[in-house]
Amino acid sequence: MSNTLEQFKEYLNKINQYSRINTLLSWDMYTATPKLGYDGMADALTYFSTEQFVLSTADELYDMLQLLSQPEEYGQLDEAMQFTVRTMKRDMEKSRRIPRDFYESFVSAQNESMRAWREAKQTSDFSLFAPHLEKLIEMTRQKCSYTDPGRNPYNVLLDQFEEGVDAAAIDQVFGELKEGLIPLVQKVLAAPQPDSSIFQGIYDKNAQKKVQELLLNYIGFSMDAGVTSESEHPFTTGFSRNDVRITNHYYEDNPISAIFSAIHEGGHGIFEQNVNPALEGTPADDCCYMGVHESQSRFYENILGRNKNFWLPIYPKLQELLPPLKNVSLDEFYREINHVQASFIRTESDELTYGLHIIIRYEIEQAIFRDNVPVSELPALWNQKMQEYLHITPANDAEGILQDIHWSDGSFGYFPSYLLGNIYDGMFLESLEKDLGSLDEILAAGNIRTVTDWLNRHIHWYGSLRLPKQVLQEVCGKPLSAQPLLTYFTKKYTALYRL
Amino acid sequence: MSNTLEQFKEYLNKINQYSRINTLLSWDMYTATPKLGYDGMADALTYFSTEQFVLSTADELYDMLQLLSQPEEYGQLDEAMQFTVRTMKRDMEKSRRIPRDFYESFVSAQNESMRAWREAKQTSDFSLFAPHLEKLIEMTRQKCSYTDPGRNPYNVLLDQFEEGVDAAAIDQVFGELKEGLIPLVQKVLAAPQPDSSIFQGIYDKNAQKKVQELLLNYIGFSMDAGVTSESEHPFTTGFSRNDVRITNHYYEDNPISAIFSAIHEGGHGIFEQNVNPALEGTPADDCCYMGVHESQSRFYENILGRNKNFWLPIYPKLQELLPPLKNVSLDEFYREINHVQASFIRTESDELTYGLHIIIRYEIEQAIFRDNVPVSELPALWNQKMQEYLHITPANDAEGILQDIHWSDGSFGYFPSYLLGNIYDGMFLESLEKDLGSLDEILAAGNIRTVTDWLNRHIHWYGSLRLPKQVLQEVCGKPLSAQPLLTYFTKKYTALYRL
Repeated sequence: MSNTLEQFKEYLNKINQYSRINTLLSWDMYTATPKLGYDGMADALTYFSTEQFVLSTADELYDMLQLLSQPEEYGQLDEAMQFTVRTMKRDMEKSRRIPRDFYESFVSAQNESMRAWREAKQTSDFSLFAPHLEKLIEMTRQKCSYTDPGRNPYNVLLDQFEEGVDAAAIDQVFGELKEGLIPLVQKVLAAPQPDSSIFQGIYDKNAQKKVQELLLNYIGFSMDAGVTSESEHPFTTGFSRNDVRITNHYYEDNPISAIFSAIHEGGHGIFEQNVNPALEGTPADDCCYMGVHESQSRFYENILGRNKNFWLPIYPKLQELLPPLKNVSLDEFYREINHVQASFIRTESDELTYGLHIIIRYEIEQAIFRDNVPVSELPALWNQKMQEYLHITPANDAEGILQDIHWSDGSFGYFPSYLLGNIYDGMFLESLEKDLGSLDEILAAGNIRTVTDWLNRHIHWYGSLRLPKQVLQEVCGKPLSAQPLLTYFTKKYTALYRL
Repeated sequence: MSNTLEQFKEYLNKINQYSRINTLLSWDMYTATPKLGYDGMADALTYFSTEQFVLSTADELYDMLQLLSQPEEYGQLDEAMQFTVRTMKRDMEKSRRIPRDFYESFVSAQNESMRAWREAKQTSDFSLFAPHLEKLIEMTRQKCSYTDPGRNPYNVLLDQFEEGVDAAAIDQVFGELKEGLIPLVQKVLAAPQPDSSIFQGIYDKNAQKKVQELLLNYIGFSMDAGVTSESEHPFTTGFSRNDVRITNHYYEDNPISAIFSAIHEGGHGIFEQNVNPALEGTPADDCCYMGVHESQSRFYENILGRNKNFWLPIYPKLQELLPPLKNVSLDEFYREINHVQASFIRTESDELTYGLHIIIRYEIEQAIFRDNVPVSELPALWNQKMQEYLHITPANDAEGILQDIHWSDGSFGYFPSYLLGNIYDGMFLESLEKDLGSLDEILAAGNIRTVTDWLNRHIHWYGSLRLPKQVLQEVCGKPLSAQPLLTYFTKKYTALYRL
């Protein structure tokens, strides 16, 4: 190993230690920190994020990356190190253009904004959040102008979450989807709906936790390398393939929410637990493309979890753990978990209308960054689009524009990746059935681990090594298209709603 | 504010940030980290402990402390800063004599040893732990010879946990106690015992958590500034008065254990939540004298929690939460929570025999450090002393010498502080009743918060500002003595066992 490479690996380990600490601080703030302790943790997060930023932008590191990028050095690196050197050098060139003072203010602004959003959502008062959102938008534009001067800021943001998929590509594929989806949703909404009232009952919170345990084990999430906890909004985070953490939120009058959050976050978690161990400690060891990551959580949640055959082998166990389900047949359960409704909350919405929720957010992000619509007008714009696509209007901003955490920490450009994930899933399903045969049959036979294994080998193993477009090419042999998802939707919902 | 003082405060803040991180890593390792994630967290703890060590031993800091110790600067500092400068300078002079390489090996050895102990305890195999214990003892001696060359190493260790109370003082006061305690225990053990079998039943774990919530609120632990979690061995840790964390361990066949652990850790927690906020961010903001700290947890657990009147106002609520207690009267409950037994596990032992458990550990620590007894002989020595004081012999080392975590991370000299805490409590009780009147009456009237308030004002408020001996002088007006505890024991157990 060359001297520079050795030094570089040591330096990378140092950055990883700070990164671990920042992840741990965030994890703690979302799952444990008491009300009065929040300020102390937020201060520490500001402190250590800044330390990590300083390390990640130091001349010393840049010099090493320059040296390792020279053909004679670069050619001798393994694939993971080549990826590391290439992406770190590129990102560094961007982040080194951000002044340190600006970065510190940005992190503080994020923390303040997250707190304000929490309060605004609780009291359904957008005005508490608006000045923070305005400030974050302004600072985000500023940040983009530092990192990518002269480039369309929204494309810069999109690139952070799904490298290589820009607004033009999204316009195209979301357009293709909308065209088929809107008439399908209208037909489904006009058809007779199942009777949800048979689900009424009290679903004990601890029983729901046991169901989560059952499901995570069933789909292949390892608790030897995993942790579960509670937070307002379910999420997945992790330190390495050996320590992946997922959260959930339980409602005593509704078991469906926590069940599908568990399967969703479990899908993210299985991804992280099954990356090639040779990538550990490099930026490739976690998938940094959110669309690809989301495709996995949503594959588990929708393509698998909302398939009737997924439940065939375990539904009696579910009924045992959740007694009110004893009066609900598997058929009724299946209908209810695919109950299509015009509803307000994205995370609680059904598989079919979900895409429209994302398209609304995508269009609002375009309104902010392309059309410069002022923050004060966003709640009205939100409500107008809800009316346009779903024919409903939120009663207040808590169930409207304030519902999601993403904008509160400035994660603009993140939302489209959820729907890209769904679109990829249509494509992955097509490929998986080509390789393994009927998914219905695999699931009915209780062989879901075969599916997990296929996803492990074809997708998870590579971490971030393949760009989203390359993943599609390798796994599906073709470029991005919404047609397979539309085909899947049409077949499934035509049968379900007897259209 | 002088320039040096300003710089010093900034530096102190930096050390506090690293200290917070190390506390958080430990908290996570005990309460959350999954099996396969343990190595990653342990590496991070080694890394950041070393960073903290480097910061705490830097010449730059020492120079500031030297300057601030000059009479003209020192005289202008407030009480908290004087304490900070004085104790940090003293500790620094000690720790700067520890070579960095040695320190790093020591932290690694601690981590390895903790892991080995965990496995040894699970499999009840002392041989897995023995080489680690041997290494830690050797390294601890070495460390003492660096920090306090020429001084009796065991007194160095005692001083770390209860400053100013040395082996001679402990020999004296433990001797005084033993003289009265051993005959009292013998009389009690010979008397008719209550029937424990009436407690048989399944005590739901989540119901036990609700009981904990009730008790913590009752005694005055604030959940706005507090967190509860689970771990193998209950403990308290914290980041500041605003974020204090306690853990518990629940047994479905025994509700008493978690109830008294909750009250015990709650007592530690109330201490930390009620230190003068002006001390925040200085080493005085947390009580660094373990005997004084333990006196508070044990005051809540024993003097309050094992008093019948503590339960009078809340026993019906307890029966409601734990249905098997519906067949147990308050009198029977009171007898059982004061059931004196010759038993193996310190943390589950009763108030009266507890002292003998500590005396055994104290005498074994003396055997190690004063008499150089080899590690291989310690299990036999343990068993011999159990036989001598309690007339029982453990069936295996898991319920013998391997039961406690303390020696696994090299916390030699810690154990005596538990019993010192009990001894202080006898003295505090005497003072409290002089000030407030009969404790029985206060508790029976449901006014336990009056007691918490008295402890807050007389003890908690001062954090570490007063040495243990000063606390006794200020609160009780007299020096250390075991007589008040013996008086309390004799009165209580003579009545309870009709001796």
